[in-house]
Amino acid sequence: MTAPPLANLINELTKLPGVGGKSASRIAYHILKRTTSEAESLANAIVDVKSKIFRCSICNNMTDVEPCAICSDPRRDAGVICVVEEAFNIPTIEQTRDFRGLFHVLLGALSPLKGVGPHDIDVGGLIKRVQAGGVREVIVATNPNVEGEATALYLAQQLRPLDVKTTRLAFGLPVGGDLEYADQVTMAKALEGRREIT
Amino acid sequence: MTAPPLANLINELTKLPGVGGKSASRIAYHILKRTTSEAESLANAIVDVKSKIFRCSICNNMTDVEPCAICSDPRRDAGVICVVEEAFNIPTIEQTRDFRGLFHVLLGALSPLKGVGPHDIDVGGLIKRVQAGGVREVIVATNPNVEGEATALYLAQQLRPLDVKTTRLAFGLPVGGDLEYADQVTMAKALEGRREIT
Repeated sequence: MTAPPLANLINELTKLPGVGGKSASRIAYHILKRTTSEAESLANAIVDVKSKIFRCSICNNMTDVEPCAICSDPRRDAGVICVVEEAFNIPTIEQTRDFRGLFHVLLGALSPLKGVGPHDIDVGGLIKRVQAGGVREVIVATNPNVEGEATALYLAQQLRPLDVKTTRLAFGLPVGGDLEYADQVTMAKALEGRREIT
Repeated sequence: MTAPPLANLINELTKLPGVGGKSASRIAYHILKRTTSEAESLANAIVDVKSKIFRCSICNNMTDVEPCAICSDPRRDAGVICVVEEAFNIPTIEQTRDFRGLFHVLLGALSPLKGVGPHDIDVGGLIKRVQAGGVREVIVATNPNVEGEATALYLAQQLRPLDVKTTRLAFGLPVGGDLEYADQVTMAKALEGRREIT
């Protein structure tokens, strides 16, 4: 008995990641309670993002200018490229304010199970950037899971002939966590990667 | 360094209930990966809901027809009115398929702390419907919290002169729950409301 336009919005919302039936319903009723202009701001933002955002031709980051703001920033160190699986991994690294190099978005990770092979992700673009010269280090920041690890190993292998240092993000205990909640594998990695206190 | 149209969408999304920064970012990147027509379906659904949905003049339910589909359904029992705080409480009760009466949406609950008094919620409309005759029972389905309880008591008091049975939803243990997780107050209510096994 839910009115069709409302049922339609709830249905559209459940297609979003992390939004189940209850959340969709809660969001829909929230939109109904807001003003029409507030609803339009949200609707316009959705349409705008699709019409104005595209991938940077150099690094595959999501951008509204070509090349993207990171690739075109002269203050950034073009000698270091951080490789991530998806564009949304970039803000996570940028938040640290510790990385001043450039990025390369692979657009996925190797996954034989999902049928994703080396030609389905943008390894070629990364190799070309390194071959063009000036790159001292490639930091592989793929996800800390089986697929991310497989991708990291594959990249290291592809980059080996190119005289560039290839590094991987450290594995270990999450800061602020509790030792007793660490899983076996993380704990083993934390032990293995232990560093001397100086 | 997030591109402005993307930052704008993320900002608009964080205004939605239950959507924090991380979820907003995840949803925004999800929209970017979908087709333009899928994004437009969502945007249109948002605009549509605001232009086509209004409140039923009888029960305050959200509807696209006047009166709403529930109020105009001849198969429903007009002798029983279930009173809820918000329109989004209606689907929760409809899901049970056990209720075949009509609804009345109060548009809130009494809350001296939030400055919501009897004149800020639609008690008047309910009284008029009961006064119009034919109503045997009013089921008060306000929330099981302090404000919902205060509202239920106030309604019972207002309805007393009108020769109508006023009932309240039962309090007790949630089905499927575990006894050890029941809080003190719920447990006390469950004991108090105990029923003979026949």
